[in-house]
Amino acid sequence: MVDLTLTSLRAAYAGGLSPTEVVDQVYQRIAEVDDPNIFLCLFDQDDLRAEAKALGAYDAAKPLWGVPFAIKDNIDAAGKVTTAACPAFAFEADEDAFVVAQLRAAGALLIGKTNLDQFATGLVGIRTPYGAPKNAVDPEIVPGGSSGGSGVSVAHGIVSFALGTDTAGSGRVPAALNNIVGLKPTLGSLSATGLVPACRTLDTISIFALTVEDAYTAFAAAAAYDEADSYSKDISTPALTQVNAPLIGVPTPDSRRFFGDDVQAQSFEATLDLLRAEGAVIREVDFTPLYDVADMLYEGAWVAERYAAIEDLMVNHPQDLHPVTRQIIGAAEKLSAADAFKGIYRLSDLIRQAEPSLAGLDMLCVPTIPTFYSVADLEVDPVGPNSRFGTYTNFVNLMDMCGIAVPTPARSDGRPGSITLLAKAGEDAKIAAYASKIEAAGDRSLGATGWARPKTKLPKAAPQEDMIEVAVCGAHMSGLPLNGDLTTRGAEFVRKDATSSDYAFYALEGGGVARPGLLRVEAGQGAQVALEIWRMPSSQFGSFIATIPQPLGIGTLNLADGAQVQGFLCEATATKGARDISELGDWRRYLEAERS
Amino acid sequence: MVDLTLTSLRAAYAGGLSPTEVVDQVYQRIAEVDDPNIFLCLFDQDDLRAEAKALGAYDAAKPLWGVPFAIKDNIDAAGKVTTAACPAFAFEADEDAFVVAQLRAAGALLIGKTNLDQFATGLVGIRTPYGAPKNAVDPEIVPGGSSGGSGVSVAHGIVSFALGTDTAGSGRVPAALNNIVGLKPTLGSLSATGLVPACRTLDTISIFALTVEDAYTAFAAAAAYDEADSYSKDISTPALTQVNAPLIGVPTPDSRRFFGDDVQAQSFEATLDLLRAEGAVIREVDFTPLYDVADMLYEGAWVAERYAAIEDLMVNHPQDLHPVTRQIIGAAEKLSAADAFKGIYRLSDLIRQAEPSLAGLDMLCVPTIPTFYSVADLEVDPVGPNSRFGTYTNFVNLMDMCGIAVPTPARSDGRPGSITLLAKAGEDAKIAAYASKIEAAGDRSLGATGWARPKTKLPKAAPQEDMIEVAVCGAHMSGLPLNGDLTTRGAEFVRKDATSSDYAFYALEGGGVARPGLLRVEAGQGAQVALEIWRMPSSQFGSFIATIPQPLGIGTLNLADGAQVQGFLCEATATKGARDISELGDWRRYLEAERS
Repeated sequence: MVDLTLTSLRAAYAGGLSPTEVVDQVYQRIAEVDDPNIFLCLFDQDDLRAEAKALGAYDAAKPLWGVPFAIKDNIDAAGKVTTAACPAFAFEADEDAFVVAQLRAAGALLIGKTNLDQFATGLVGIRTPYGAPKNAVDPEIVPGGSSGGSGVSVAHGIVSFALGTDTAGSGRVPAALNNIVGLKPTLGSLSATGLVPACRTLDTISIFALTVEDAYTAFAAAAAYDEADSYSKDISTPALTQVNAPLIGVPTPDSRRFFGDDVQAQSFEATLDLLRAEGAVIREVDFTPLYDVADMLYEGAWVAERYAAIEDLMVNHPQDLHPVTRQIIGAAEKLSAADAFKGIYRLSDLIRQAEPSLAGLDMLCVPTIPTFYSVADLEVDPVGPNSRFGTYTNFVNLMDMCGIAVPTPARSDGRPGSITLLAKAGEDAKIAAYASKIEAAGDRSLGATGWARPKTKLPKAAPQEDMIEVAVCGAHMSGLPLNGDLTTRGAEFVRKDATSSDYAFYALEGGGVARPGLLRVEAGQGAQVALEIWRMPSSQFGSFIATIPQPLGIGTLNLADGAQVQGFLCEATATKGARDISELGDWRRYLEAERS
Repeated sequence: MVDLTLTSLRAAYAGGLSPTEVVDQVYQRIAEVDDPNIFLCLFDQDDLRAEAKALGAYDAAKPLWGVPFAIKDNIDAAGKVTTAACPAFAFEADEDAFVVAQLRAAGALLIGKTNLDQFATGLVGIRTPYGAPKNAVDPEIVPGGSSGGSGVSVAHGIVSFALGTDTAGSGRVPAALNNIVGLKPTLGSLSATGLVPACRTLDTISIFALTVEDAYTAFAAAAAYDEADSYSKDISTPALTQVNAPLIGVPTPDSRRFFGDDVQAQSFEATLDLLRAEGAVIREVDFTPLYDVADMLYEGAWVAERYAAIEDLMVNHPQDLHPVTRQIIGAAEKLSAADAFKGIYRLSDLIRQAEPSLAGLDMLCVPTIPTFYSVADLEVDPVGPNSRFGTYTNFVNLMDMCGIAVPTPARSDGRPGSITLLAKAGEDAKIAAYASKIEAAGDRSLGATGWARPKTKLPKAAPQEDMIEVAVCGAHMSGLPLNGDLTTRGAEFVRKDATSSDYAFYALEGGGVARPGLLRVEAGQGAQVALEIWRMPSSQFGSFIATIPQPLGIGTLNLADGAQVQGFLCEATATKGARDISELGDWRRYLEAERS
């Protein structure tokens, strides 16, 4: 059996594995897992084999070639029924959702549609009339929701990734409960065409996967501007590169909420120690304003969006709804349009209050969930534990942040650890890159699979702009008076070097900072002169040039190894009468000699 | 009597006029105009005289020193009653509105508070229980609203500028009806602290003035980020500079709406001819999607914002409201929170539909109003004409555009002409600058004052980034082979010049493009060499330097007039054996000589 991380799968495909074998493995794995409540619609195995065959020869250019995936059953697949976990709502979709079409175009194989909290209303995963799927790690614990089936299918290693959706936290809570990654992208980055809305202004499709890189790869393949979705945005999805020493905001100890779960509190503290050890700067932030924002999601007017999405059912067939869902969404019936706007105003006010404490942070780090709840807990109280699951998730879409839930080393009691990184809209790549660093800490297996995490490491970030090398031979060298003209322009030291033997070297006369003059003479008739090579952003070179007085300038120097580099030269006429220090061949040596 | 444009006023103050004299003039003018319905609260003349005296000596650094202004009576002034034209709502304000405080800090003198359509609901200016002010140009015509008193006070030359507010068009319609300028800034640029809200998500304070420059000066003084207003934004207010040849969208002839007013249609067409003649590129745009957006303002859910603002009155004292106002705002009582969100979705959809046709445009140009309505018209139908006034204004704040209404030459029947320029949020300066060009066309007097427009002209735009001058003496000169290395980097030709007589000039040997070498020799022992001075963005200089091969480089040249400039030099060693062309002193002359 091949493990289904993209790293393993690609290697296996490159080595000759057939995608039909992977299809067979998927169905075998479904049989082994033997949880009939994960999929609301499982596609025919023979159809999938045919689809896999139709992929033809392995095409490494397709980022998801032969990769099996599942989607939450509030997302359309052409020719299949979308239920949103409500039989009375079910309809056959004519077309793939925009995002599904993107993923299929990238070579992915859709194998089925997964169970969910009805109309994506819930964080527990058991508010479904079809019977709840079991948590993949511990069947006593709720699977998490609303994207429960998707989360569990990934954690069991049935598929490589699965689409969820996330309005309140449905793309993150199941990740924490099932020891996997949950990428909740920037609102609008994944089109909502073909998605049953929960709160249309706050919904996003999300991605579960076993590793951060896999989740991000699927995200990048799925993300595209969709003119048919008025909330679609064009978000860049650059390749991930290392993030070093970010400034991370975390809740102050007083504003952390674990509802008595000391083990979870310790797990979070241990993660912060890990981040500090890796160079992150941790700043504590009072989370009270963020919790106030979170409260708006169900106590403000946004529940009316859920009502608007299923108004016909609520008015004409309320008995067809899950009782808890009906109760929650029914609260909208008392709300007027004026109440909606008052909620919008209050949200703006709360966000404004929270802004100062978030200014300057690269990201936030929070526990994904404050604690764990069992299926039995929810039988006693179907609403309270659900609400508490949203402690660290409910404010996120209201504040237009992106987020990624990532496993951390197991808690002391063996339950999965998880934190979520959050950042401003559009910074999905930054938090994914840092999440990749976090998941690499400690040994853990992926989801409930027993598979090991592939040992991958992100590349270093390329310089953000063109750089230009410049050779300096005098007062600009490290520690000398004009070195600041380089460093204040973002220049970095590259190496020590020397000219070819074609140069004369002079100590120039004149006041101010002592400066040498480098003059090219007949080839081979001069001396080698010591240089420092610095690298400066090209955009800064103009302002640097403006600091250089006559008789100095910038030309092209010959180096000892035959290469050339831009560097300081002196006009010949200015060297007349100047002291020739070619024999010293080094401005520092000259300065030392002068001092002694 | 001094005319109250800022240009005249500043000159008069600089020449010794006392601001108390201006205060006296204001009150004398109020008496002359003799319309008791302009001001709902006129401040005491002696208080104003004292305030004027307290300004001390003329301070040209304060942009509004000694400038009289008025504010609409839905904006707070410390210690004065705010009525919003509803006696039952009236309260005494403790503090100046944020914007009023900004203007006073800039030296302006607040002389009173003006009449309005109750709760800023209306575009006619006569929905007030205090009696309507008269239009300043033609008393038969409505004054326009809701900021009617402010518009009229400016048009009469009582004050230099006045604050209105603008949700549907209240800062633009009165400008068109009274032959003045109406600047409706980007939402959030002027703080709403101390403003009675109409639709809090769509409201902005606006500025009426006699000229564009005066309106913009007041705007720039008033604009500042206000952390107490959750909708406040930090918008830049750069000095105005010339805008040339913009790409302007206008309604297609089929989608222009004049409601039978052919004179207004001709006036608009004449303005477009004017714009074309001045170099603008006109692109016709189907305005149907924008009208659909406009319809949302009262037919969508936003009327619920007006309801939310005065809920207590609507519920407990509906009889205290103007009957038309009560009728319009009462429509919100039937709207649910779900309706509000459905309206928000529809707006997003409509905006998305409109976007493609607006892409790439610098601005839109529309008639400010489609036609004129008289007080008598409104007595027959208090709602229809009001709605039609909003034809070209109602969509603007819903689409988060900024706008400025500016007078154009009088219509053929003598009524004021007016167009409005619209652009994306944050582009206030761009449209104001172009409006300034438009108002300069044709002779007209300002408002109803008979004053002439000061002959001012905006300065040319400064380069947007640091530029660096570079002297070229060879193949980089205009028309020569390497000139593209300059022009592709955004460099511009500045002037011809020449070196001091300190240089030798050589035709270098070697393949490729023929190039000269400039070498400084003993002072006065050389020749003058012809140069072209170019100016290049500093950020491009690094990549330019990288194109320069040995033995050439960039140093500092002495010019014939004693100045210095960065420019091309040649290493001395490379000139040995090269042909000395110093006598020619000009690379072009050398090339010509070679050809012949």
